[in-house]
Amino acid sequence: MGVFETTLRVRYAETDAMGIVHHSRYFVWLEIARIEWLRSLDLDYKAMEHDGFSIPVIQADLTYKSPAFFDDELQITLIPPTDLSHVRFTLNYLIKRNTTVLTQGFTVHVFLNKDRKLIQPPHFFIERLKAQ
Amino acid sequence: MGVFETTLRVRYAETDAMGIVHHSRYFVWLEIARIEWLRSLDLDYKAMEHDGFSIPVIQADLTYKSPAFFDDELQITLIPPTDLSHVRFTLNYLIKRNTTVLTQGFTVHVFLNKDRKLIQPPHFFIERLKAQ
Amino acid sequence: MGVFETTLRVRYAETDAMGIVHHSRYFVWLEIARIEWLRSLDLDYKAMEHDGFSIPVIQADLTYKSPAFFDDELQITLIPPTDLSHVRFTLNYLIKRNTTVLTQGFTVHVFLNKDRKLIQPPHFFIERLKAQ
Amino acid sequence: MGVFETTLRVRYAETDAMGIVHHSRYFVWLEIARIEWLRSLDLDYKAMEHDGFSIPVIQADLTYKSPAFFDDELQITLIPPTDLSHVRFTLNYLIKRNTTVLTQGFTVHVFLNKDRKLIQPPHFFIERLKAQ
Repeated sequence: MGVFETTLRVRYAETDAMGIVHHSRYFVWLEIARIEWLRSLDLDYKAMEHDGFSIPVIQADLTYKSPAFFDDELQITLIPPTDLSHVRFTLNYLIKRNTTVLTQGFTVHVFLNKDRKLIQPPHFFIERLKAQ
Repeated sequence: MGVFETTLRVRYAETDAMGIVHHSRYFVWLEIARIEWLRSLDLDYKAMEHDGFSIPVIQADLTYKSPAFFDDELQITLIPPTDLSHVRFTLNYLIKRNTTVLTQGFTVHVFLNKDRKLIQPPHFFIERLKAQ
Repeated sequence: MGVFETTLRVRYAETDAMGIVHHSRYFVWLEIARIEWLRSLDLDYKAMEHDGFSIPVIQADLTYKSPAFFDDELQITLIPPTDLSHVRFTLNYLIKRNTTVLTQGFTVHVFLNKDRKLIQPPHFFIERLKAQ
Repeated sequence: MGVFETTLRVRYAETDAMGIVHHSRYFVWLEIARIEWLRSLDLDYKAMEHDGFSIPVIQADLTYKSPAFFDDELQITLIPPTDLSHVRFTLNYLIKRNTTVLTQGFTVHVFLNKDRKLIQPPHFFIERLKAQ
């Protein structure tokens, strides 16, 4: 499965009084990367939610190496899960400004059905990932 | 009907790279004031939503006179609507740091029922306001 | 002076428990439109701040006509100021999803210099706007 | 050194379209707990920043066990660092709604001086912690 990359530009409202991006904002960017990664697999997260599935975050971890600043153009790399045989699966991320790694981390997820019950990753999801 | 006042302390994450509170954050504070004002009237907005009512914002306006800073203790004054005979009603606000007015403004609201249809402000709401 | 348009996609983190975009988020989008509008005029707001200028919001007003939802692709139209002869100037905005107007409003701004003193809009700014 | 606890009420703007608090918001709450913990030690983070010190987050990790909802009253427990002999130090957290643990996690921090150079935790900080 291939690595996925998306880009974004830092918003003024994402900075704080230290003059850098507030550490909580990066988790929002990871979510954007997940949505765009799913779209790149022809999976529409909005439609999935409409069908009763959700993929909540059950753990989120980021290590901050270098700050991001207002108006920076950043690259977010998402590394797909290598193991989908369990209920939990892990996505890894790198956030870079050109060749500088700003943050790296991971999120752990599960699938919930429309009753908010934990389920195995559904077949259509596994098939789309394998197809990559 | 009496004026309502609540207080809050500015969060670091509410500041931006200008070293002051980002102008968009104040609208979140107005919402906190509305929820606390309703609570002071024995109206629980969460229970109201559970019963199918919502009170969306249809206009929001703030004038910024002086900045707020990290860790400031602020007073938010909410001036209740004087006219509830129409579908729309208006709340007015002042945000102060001690005697300094930082911002002033208003929000305009309607009531929606569980089908997201526009309704007149319901009787229980008007009665609670009159009781003040 | 020409109208400026930029687009964005609604982030999950911009929605709230009503299932729609929280009304405070739109003000962040107006700011993005301003930054991109300046860039379209060859004005780099980050460089302007570095040179000691800032353009704070002194009033912000939005009217909400129809909600925005997660993953919507939106168009933000910014209508440049028609009068720059005063200390204050006004930008007008429309936010649309295709042909549906979701919100409309305005922001009022001033220029501050590096000492946070109010100044007339500087010549380089007026010249760039006239050049459009 | 004693465990520190602070409380907060969930804001509407902190929820998302899943009807629960967005996972990124909890990191803002951890920051509030740090600021209030410092205040409980007679350390004013705003004054510390004025004196040129900052305590950026270099890692943040949260595990989500149960969701928080609008208007919940939550308790945030901060467990102070047990080891201040290194450049990095770790704070641990629990977020609870009454007896239910919603999230648990940690943040890792360093001290920077006014030149944004890494320094050992300063004496006044270590002394205040030992005094607890």
